[in-house]
Amino acid sequence: MPRPIFFLSDYGLADEYVGICHAVIARVNPEARVVDLTHGVPPQDVMAGALMLASSAVHGPPDAVYLAVVDPGVGTDRRGLALRAGDAFLVGPDNGLLWPASRDLGGIDAAVAIDHAAVARGPVSATFHGRDVFAPAAAMLAAGARPEDLGSPVDPATVVVLEPPAPTVRQGEVKASVLGVDRFGNVRLAARREHLERAALGADLVLVRKGGAVPLRRAVTFADVRDGGYGLLEDSAGWLAVVRFEAGAAEELGLRRGDAVRLAARGDAVG
Amino acid sequence: MPRPIFFLSDYGLADEYVGICHAVIARVNPEARVVDLTHGVPPQDVMAGALMLASSAVHGPPDAVYLAVVDPGVGTDRRGLALRAGDAFLVGPDNGLLWPASRDLGGIDAAVAIDHAAVARGPVSATFHGRDVFAPAAAMLAAGARPEDLGSPVDPATVVVLEPPAPTVRQGEVKASVLGVDRFGNVRLAARREHLERAALGADLVLVRKGGAVPLRRAVTFADVRDGGYGLLEDSAGWLAVVRFEAGAAEELGLRRGDAVRLAARGDAVG
Amino acid sequence: MPRPIFFLSDYGLADEYVGICHAVIARVNPEARVVDLTHGVPPQDVMAGALMLASSAVHGPPDAVYLAVVDPGVGTDRRGLALRAGDAFLVGPDNGLLWPASRDLGGIDAAVAIDHAAVARGPVSATFHGRDVFAPAAAMLAAGARPEDLGSPVDPATVVVLEPPAPTVRQGEVKASVLGVDRFGNVRLAARREHLERAALGADLVLVRKGGAVPLRRAVTFADVRDGGYGLLEDSAGWLAVVRFEAGAAEELGLRRGDAVRLAARGDAVG
Repeated sequence: MPRPIFFLSDYGLADEYVGICHAVIARVNPEARVVDLTHGVPPQDVMAGALMLASSAVHGPPDAVYLAVVDPGVGTDRRGLALRAGDAFLVGPDNGLLWPASRDLGGIDAAVAIDHAAVARGPVSATFHGRDVFAPAAAMLAAGARPEDLGSPVDPATVVVLEPPAPTVRQGEVKASVLGVDRFGNVRLAARREHLERAALGADLVLVRKGGAVPLRRAVTFADVRDGGYGLLEDSAGWLAVVRFEAGAAEELGLRRGDAVRLAARGDAVG
Repeated sequence: MPRPIFFLSDYGLADEYVGICHAVIARVNPEARVVDLTHGVPPQDVMAGALMLASSAVHGPPDAVYLAVVDPGVGTDRRGLALRAGDAFLVGPDNGLLWPASRDLGGIDAAVAIDHAAVARGPVSATFHGRDVFAPAAAMLAAGARPEDLGSPVDPATVVVLEPPAPTVRQGEVKASVLGVDRFGNVRLAARREHLERAALGADLVLVRKGGAVPLRRAVTFADVRDGGYGLLEDSAGWLAVVRFEAGAAEELGLRRGDAVRLAARGDAVG
Repeated sequence: MPRPIFFLSDYGLADEYVGICHAVIARVNPEARVVDLTHGVPPQDVMAGALMLASSAVHGPPDAVYLAVVDPGVGTDRRGLALRAGDAFLVGPDNGLLWPASRDLGGIDAAVAIDHAAVARGPVSATFHGRDVFAPAAAMLAAGARPEDLGSPVDPATVVVLEPPAPTVRQGEVKASVLGVDRFGNVRLAARREHLERAALGADLVLVRKGGAVPLRRAVTFADVRDGGYGLLEDSAGWLAVVRFEAGAAEELGLRRGDAVRLAARGDAVG
């Protein structure tokens, strides 16, 4: 079977951009199977896109082609990349977007700077490389091409690296930033269980953010806080998340992507 | 041909959750064909999801696999189900979500409580059974497995039942609640034409809601009220709906899901 | 291979309407491949849908079936059409929606008024011809039917024509209306580079709209205005667009679809 293409972008679904990329893929490779991972990456938010891609890629088939486009530098001299990581291929701009997924897929085994002439079907626009460069590149990879067929090899060590902000861990305290808020109002933090353990924090915590401190209880499921209040659980991608039961935590806490929070032991909240 | 999978959830499309479930399905069953019914079910609104699933399922192929996830009780002891109804299969949590569709597909012929060990590819998270349990279960059913292969049979009569609130019908009056408001601002009521007939209501009506009464005219098409005003028509799923022509009714009427309304004969609106 | 179906509508993704159409297609033609172009056309906005369809269709495979539904006149006597344009087929209501795409695909070679009896699987509702008429028609075309099989031939010259509003061009001035605002806040104008050239406008411009004039610089990429300010570039569909770098232009300028703007030479902005 041909490799399936998994497509992620910040194009949204209100406009025709995603559909046009699908049309291009179908034109280049009529047998291509394309799965939309999400197109809801916040506009131009390369970090959010990179983390969503990584969360998804670990669950996909080993031979997938990941097509990812969050590309504020489109039309400049930033490179377009085709990567091999394990058995998978990744295609997108060289701005860090592909990095966390490539690492989680086993690391970059080969990297190619895409040559427009090798993939484009006509003139390349200055504003829509998803359509003119990356979609046809992914369609070719799904049809049997190798990254090496799409351009010139580059040193994998030169691929732009992007990491989420590391938490600050001290005895009794973890400072982290908000990685994102999902549809349910769950607040994903840039910290993991290991950081709580290193800080020797237990089950009864406080969350301190601009606006004050609120009690927070370690939880495993949403229903663990069905009697109200805030829970801190390990979410499905392994991040710590602040949650409520059948309600959103973000709005009431006034938290948004990028905000700084502090986790501390109960009774120890003075910030 | 393998059975197609029809997927409905409250995951939304802004996050990567739907894409991850697609990735899991492709990994378990590379030949699976997956169709998204909708992922716009309001968060944790099991009733809304159940009705959307039922409206869709009556139009799908007889051998479809319905994968439905609206699951506020994820991680608790609520059961995960695989059902057979007619030739179709349904997979999802046992909270009523699958019930109306199963009934409309001919009733539950067999029910199985999914055994995690039979379907999961690795550790099962406490918060994302769509990914860890239900998506692989659907992928296996599409690949030829039977519900019986996924767990232990349970009595179909123990499956959680969920019904929309029944209208109150009296001579000259139907009281009903708002089932939902669609993208166009059409207001779907939990009542059908038969209820109007039982109440002996004719073509000239009033709609009474908090805020007062407005005239309402029986209509067949949106264009029947192209001269302005509100129409009451039988919508595409057989529910009564309050509509306007090329405009939304909900906002101007101040109506939202769950609100109570009363339909009465014109001149008879004092409520 | 069977013809692929490309589906565009104003149904949105929050409701089950798109999913139901997919279900119908799968029932009529289990081998159909369906690609969603977009379902984010603003409700009942036939012009917006027509332009999105045209922007997409020029990139699709030559043998595509375009299924397009933006249909405020559903249930009235407006015709349903199946068209042949080049090697492609188009299906939808006769309200102009199919016209720009048909023209860009080479013009209408044959037109058929769809006969409900030839395509419907059961009773045809008065409000959801996407489900009852157009989706099955597209599924049949993908399975090998020709437009002629779906109804009676009509004169292509009678198909409703829809054109975007033409700009007004004078020496030193282009007046145009806003065609739309995309997810990124880019403002697409109903004008093209040729209009700037006819008006003999250079690189330094002003944009005049209700609320006053702002400087505007001709640009090729978004990054050309990375030092701030507004750029005017030719977008990926060949329209002029007002943009900023990593930010939206529409909100700050207070511009929305349908607004009138004037492009003039810098220092010449008095309106």
